[in-house]
Amino acid sequence: MEEGSMQSVNVGIIGFGTVGSGTFEVLTKNREIIRNRVGAEVVVKKIADLDIESDRGVPVDPGLLTREAMDVITDPDIHVVLELIGGLGEAKEYILEAMERGKHVVTANKALLAESGEEIYACAERCGVNLAFEASVGGGIPVIRAFREGLSANRIDTIMGILNGTSNYILTRMTRKGLPYQEAVQEAIDLGYAEDPPTLDVNGTDAAHKIAILISIAFGMPAPFGSIYRQGIDYLTPDDIRFAEEFGYCIKLLAIARDRGDGIEARVHPAMVPKDHIMANVNGAYNAIYVEGDFVGPNLYYGLGAGKRPTGSAVVSDIIWLARQIRHGISGLMPPLAHVRPQGGGISIQPIESLNTAYYFRFSAVDEPGVLSRISGVLGEHRISISSVIQKGREVNGSVPIVMLTHEAKESNVIKALSLMNELEVLTDRTVMIRVEAG
Amino acid sequence: MEEGSMQSVNVGIIGFGTVGSGTFEVLTKNREIIRNRVGAEVVVKKIADLDIESDRGVPVDPGLLTREAMDVITDPDIHVVLELIGGLGEAKEYILEAMERGKHVVTANKALLAESGEEIYACAERCGVNLAFEASVGGGIPVIRAFREGLSANRIDTIMGILNGTSNYILTRMTRKGLPYQEAVQEAIDLGYAEDPPTLDVNGTDAAHKIAILISIAFGMPAPFGSIYRQGIDYLTPDDIRFAEEFGYCIKLLAIARDRGDGIEARVHPAMVPKDHIMANVNGAYNAIYVEGDFVGPNLYYGLGAGKRPTGSAVVSDIIWLARQIRHGISGLMPPLAHVRPQGGGISIQPIESLNTAYYFRFSAVDEPGVLSRISGVLGEHRISISSVIQKGREVNGSVPIVMLTHEAKESNVIKALSLMNELEVLTDRTVMIRVEAG
Repeated sequence: MEEGSMQSVNVGIIGFGTVGSGTFEVLTKNREIIRNRVGAEVVVKKIADLDIESDRGVPVDPGLLTREAMDVITDPDIHVVLELIGGLGEAKEYILEAMERGKHVVTANKALLAESGEEIYACAERCGVNLAFEASVGGGIPVIRAFREGLSANRIDTIMGILNGTSNYILTRMTRKGLPYQEAVQEAIDLGYAEDPPTLDVNGTDAAHKIAILISIAFGMPAPFGSIYRQGIDYLTPDDIRFAEEFGYCIKLLAIARDRGDGIEARVHPAMVPKDHIMANVNGAYNAIYVEGDFVGPNLYYGLGAGKRPTGSAVVSDIIWLARQIRHGISGLMPPLAHVRPQGGGISIQPIESLNTAYYFRFSAVDEPGVLSRISGVLGEHRISISSVIQKGREVNGSVPIVMLTHEAKESNVIKALSLMNELEVLTDRTVMIRVEAG
Repeated sequence: MEEGSMQSVNVGIIGFGTVGSGTFEVLTKNREIIRNRVGAEVVVKKIADLDIESDRGVPVDPGLLTREAMDVITDPDIHVVLELIGGLGEAKEYILEAMERGKHVVTANKALLAESGEEIYACAERCGVNLAFEASVGGGIPVIRAFREGLSANRIDTIMGILNGTSNYILTRMTRKGLPYQEAVQEAIDLGYAEDPPTLDVNGTDAAHKIAILISIAFGMPAPFGSIYRQGIDYLTPDDIRFAEEFGYCIKLLAIARDRGDGIEARVHPAMVPKDHIMANVNGAYNAIYVEGDFVGPNLYYGLGAGKRPTGSAVVSDIIWLARQIRHGISGLMPPLAHVRPQGGGISIQPIESLNTAYYFRFSAVDEPGVLSRISGVLGEHRISISSVIQKGREVNGSVPIVMLTHEAKESNVIKALSLMNELEVLTDRTVMIRVEAG
């Protein structure tokens, strides 16, 4: 970089969609605040997007716009490249190419970091540049920073996240209004909270991407994304939500990671959370990350998990972090995963079968004597003991619901028991299973 | 510092009480994790305390111990001095002396920073050293880091904190068990959650120290501590807590700061918080800081606000932050208040009289016709309009409670009305007033 450039820190944006334009808006509207905090001007030098015609609702000097991402990457005046196109396609090449050319990179691309982080993190270290990705998890919540810095004195034991605002909005509407799943989804789509169809949001993939990133920082190594268990929310009914409430729980799509000593538990699925747990009060499009460290104890971070403005806030906080280092002429203050050396010998994720937890079951049974005994017999044979049962209401369409909570049991036994159970002729439908988190 | 010292970052501790020994324990137990995250060994070189005999429950090489703080400050091998004695006495001289000698300083001393921060921040900048104080607010919650970095792209509009765990514990016990104030205080003292007497905790001073620090970082200038309005919790009764619940609120000791454009609202007092607000679910010894930024929207940070282990976690996160910079040979990556230039022309705190908010009043009245009309007459004359009233129960000791919520009103009018009211002969006791926070 030439001498005079330290008067300003120059940024190039690749991708001028929701996140890109939100970022540009923060940089424009809070220019003075940012200058006061950095001690230098942060200047957008170029913006690349295939669409350079549409109005983004914020005034842009047309001279900044280009259709070519490489115009940004090859500009010698640019210190920091923002990759804000997302997805698993060209984003990766742009990031690698920019780092090879000595640019620091800020990205919001959770899918890419979760699925190909290893190559990107290694490239950043090799090139001696910083890679920052606060916006990849939890929208505007500075949780990546908390993991990289705020909790850095701790061994992280537990992470429990509500990491997908769309599915949390859907579950909140099902809970508060008793809406069936499909109606709540349609409402979320109509309000712009969900894409149509919202597949990656409701099937747990998006939350799994995010928990993979948090696990990677907690342990200093890329987590094997494919090994993270995923179950979506589409099988839940307002009945299950009501029964959960009777037991004192609410249902959330949780992304959970726990250090079990001999491996990491990593899973995304609907879970029953006790109503008095702070996570039970995270509603609507909000996200929250609950963490337990060995010294800090329980910590929670809460805020809007998506949207132009919160995501712009996170991207610009990364730019400020980089700009402060650039002003001081340093780079690589810490590696992307905030570990100079990794914590152990690779991250081993335990298969879901080895999980031990409590369970909620809803059986649809014919209304005749001896059914409960048949069910509890199968459970007992698999060492699954019942802690409470609700059986009420007369038959609907020839069946009655039998709902129960179990004590802690082994998932492998639950899988076997449910598979046997689904062949019992006294059961008229598949059994609904929801895992219980004690918190 | 001599050449070889970059193999390790050397720390000296002044004050080996609760926080000091907690810090030492983190550094000892998580030594490997810390080394992996820093890329260098963090070594405790000296520990100064008047008492070098007592067992701290953690093994310490006696060769490290000294009774002289100056032994730590003058040690040429020490990069980072931890001031963990607290208080307004010698702590300040130790901090200034250490910085003058080129040491970076970590402190947990909220009283000192709130009351004499200006001199300390200026000294750090003049000496080109870092001053870090994560442990001064919110115990283990990395909220200072969130303000300095995570939310750095935002104009901070609102801060609302439950910043004192002792008073929150007392209020939680009063709420859950219906305990009178004095019994809840005694319980907190017996359990070691409170000092005896817990004056600075329950009268709002401790929370005011902490909100002063957060305001200072939000605006980049030391806040005038003396101008922060403070009201304690000792006047609250289980009756007020029950009436608040009937109105849909719970009572918390809140520290509040709001940017009003023409000045900053800064106040600590008991407040009614709607039960469905996330802050209403912060119970027991937990702390939480709720922040609204112009782009990030609402954010919440939650965790244990005090205690040896969480505070140790915060102090060591600061050491790691410093150690990463020391390894890279830089210092002063950002000034103590994270603003290279301040945001505006000095912090002007508005007097409490200019507050506009809603109010809860509990009047103790004689049980005779026309009392409600007398009361509402006085309120009406002061432009205070009533939104709801509870009057029930027959007289106790010759009086009945009349409880009401008002619409938004001006505090100066409320002060006048209550002062007139307290002279009405139909009122048998002083009126209880609690401000309502809409959140």
